[in-house]
Amino acid sequence: MSVTQVCQQARQASSVLRELHADSKNRALLLLAEALADNGERLKSANSADLDAARSDGVSGTLIDRLTLTDKRLSSICQATRTVADLPDPVGQVVSGSVRPNGLLIERVREPLGVVAVIYEARPNVTADVAALCLKSGNAAVLRGSSIAAHTNAAIADVMTEALRQQDEVPEHAVQLVRDLSREAVVELLTADEYIDLLVPRGGQGLLAAVREHATVPVVIDGDGNCHVYVDASADLERAASIVVNAKTSRPSVCNAAETLLVHAAVAGAFLPIVLEELHKAGVELRGDERVREIWPDAEPARESDWATEYLGLVLAVRVVDSVDAALTHISRYGTRNSEAIVAQDISVARRFARAVDSGSVFVNCSTRFSDGGEFGYGLEIGISTQKLHARGPMGLEALTCVKNVAWGDGQIRL
Amino acid sequence: MSVTQVCQQARQASSVLRELHADSKNRALLLLAEALADNGERLKSANSADLDAARSDGVSGTLIDRLTLTDKRLSSICQATRTVADLPDPVGQVVSGSVRPNGLLIERVREPLGVVAVIYEARPNVTADVAALCLKSGNAAVLRGSSIAAHTNAAIADVMTEALRQQDEVPEHAVQLVRDLSREAVVELLTADEYIDLLVPRGGQGLLAAVREHATVPVVIDGDGNCHVYVDASADLERAASIVVNAKTSRPSVCNAAETLLVHAAVAGAFLPIVLEELHKAGVELRGDERVREIWPDAEPARESDWATEYLGLVLAVRVVDSVDAALTHISRYGTRNSEAIVAQDISVARRFARAVDSGSVFVNCSTRFSDGGEFGYGLEIGISTQKLHARGPMGLEALTCVKNVAWGDGQIRL
Repeated sequence: MSVTQVCQQARQASSVLRELHADSKNRALLLLAEALADNGERLKSANSADLDAARSDGVSGTLIDRLTLTDKRLSSICQATRTVADLPDPVGQVVSGSVRPNGLLIERVREPLGVVAVIYEARPNVTADVAALCLKSGNAAVLRGSSIAAHTNAAIADVMTEALRQQDEVPEHAVQLVRDLSREAVVELLTADEYIDLLVPRGGQGLLAAVREHATVPVVIDGDGNCHVYVDASADLERAASIVVNAKTSRPSVCNAAETLLVHAAVAGAFLPIVLEELHKAGVELRGDERVREIWPDAEPARESDWATEYLGLVLAVRVVDSVDAALTHISRYGTRNSEAIVAQDISVARRFARAVDSGSVFVNCSTRFSDGGEFGYGLEIGISTQKLHARGPMGLEALTCVKNVAWGDGQIRL
Repeated sequence: MSVTQVCQQARQASSVLRELHADSKNRALLLLAEALADNGERLKSANSADLDAARSDGVSGTLIDRLTLTDKRLSSICQATRTVADLPDPVGQVVSGSVRPNGLLIERVREPLGVVAVIYEARPNVTADVAALCLKSGNAAVLRGSSIAAHTNAAIADVMTEALRQQDEVPEHAVQLVRDLSREAVVELLTADEYIDLLVPRGGQGLLAAVREHATVPVVIDGDGNCHVYVDASADLERAASIVVNAKTSRPSVCNAAETLLVHAAVAGAFLPIVLEELHKAGVELRGDERVREIWPDAEPARESDWATEYLGLVLAVRVVDSVDAALTHISRYGTRNSEAIVAQDISVARRFARAVDSGSVFVNCSTRFSDGGEFGYGLEIGISTQKLHARGPMGLEALTCVKNVAWGDGQIRL
């Protein structure tokens, strides 16, 4: 089936989905969770086919690990779908409302976007997670996963479609997988503006370049995370060390991990030996500027390119700065506007940083690793937006809705 | 000065603007209003130069009228700027906030977008209105007006810049006009994604085509308004006639005027003779389908293209439909997702229509002409969005802001 046909079916399904009550959508979500749990062997066998192919293609161990569908992971996929059923329905929420002087009641009401497409990487849970979030928010989902997970994704999509065929409230085409894994199919999706109301690209630089070149559909970018931790002169240094180590090492491959540490000159001498020793022991390669290397000579010299690099691994760039303003200037120059943290006891400095930094999420005296839909209380997340329009930071159900203006009158005309 | 230089200056100004308190911004707005009022003769003389050129180019009477800066219009421009000073500051507003189980306080706080660019048509008030809205919301404004109003816009911008130079809170480059009126300058603006956080194109099909072809900056489209009024079988017909006539004739050249009337078959015989007679007397040219012409033979036969046309003048397409669903199908097929109205006494039909119609604004028992920032209580408007992401329908100050996530912790790390 062509991408356009998939999109047309999604558009038709969306006109039914937008009017469904939460009860109907939740029943379908629980049915999906049950079907995924019941088909564990089938899903794992499809996953084995992907793993075999990946291994024989010499794919890296990290990627193999991400791709692997274990019993535990399957169980959390099912649990996540049930979690989405438990979340409040964003559709119909009255965001604001007031009666105008002429008696018109104007309400701003949340409703589904329509058709949501997501292009994503190799993790098998994304297929189920995105399907669940779209269904709950009344949107038809068009999914395009990585070719490395082709069998797994197809099996998950098949199980979901079969489950939806067993009921008659949610249309079968509410969730569809694009089976065409060619680059042309991605371009077709990026230009299907007649059908797609939102496309979320989750992936690397290649995908983002294709989006920039081709996309005519509305897009919310799930982009890079060159995240900073700034340790102020007023910081509680023990707390600062714990936050820096957590932000760098708890899961270095994700976009909310810290990539650069900025330390105020007044505490560099006291703080750096402690934190860099701890990071070094945790296996982190350190790259510092001259002032850092005076204090910690084992650090490699940081090059200009280090400040702009999202390592996504156990490497950290470290720089000494003379003020919170110098930290802000550094972040503004090299950052990707994703997530930044400050460790400071001085309330004026902390508030200044929180206000002035031009990023989606700011963390005061806590780790950048909290930049996450689950941690924000959104249940699952559809991604982390690095743009300013529509949605910023972790995106949950609300990011899959838009707001309609509804004016209730009694014959009013405009004079 | 090149467009890029203008954008660079705007970006610098925006970093000061984003931290200003409302008091500072309001003082500057009142200063701008005063300066515009004090420079009336200078502005009108610049406007005369534009009018002379337009007349000798044979520009239409309607456009000449829009372009003309009268004393009354100048006074409303100044008043509008004062109105913006009186509006509440959207910056800093806490949209939502909660304490997570681990003790993190997560607040979602409104802040300026940064640099906002607007490309607009010939009305001289837009230069001052957009400048005021951007300044109030803490954004630097980059304005690109129509070449037909070049002298007027330049004079307004000069007066504003001179006024800003008299104070030291709001940077002089908070408001800038792009003086280069070439098509290349528009393309340069559309691709200045390094500097521009939001571009609002207000204009015709040519501009929108250029946006589709070139824009790499984030855009909110102020697009077409092929607006519908649906008169249900349950409608109060007197009320329906008043609403239809108002929606079509009170200001036919604007995007919230009605272009198609859909009437339920059960009331077509009773309603059409009354409303079409009234519209005919008001000078409206009527184009109907077969069932309309059986009742009102004077109507021209409507062609397929009529259903998709935004006349922006005294023409109305009229069609008889058999149900609210048929009306919804027609609107979904031919509409531009701007504004639609229903006239109905049956609460189920009215609620169904309000929920199912996929447009930015829906008007129940009132005129589509209320689709307007002023009528919605936003003070002025930056435009009417016809897209779903970020802002939908009339855009006021809120549409010029984005939401930042701020997490206040006490040493929390992610386990």
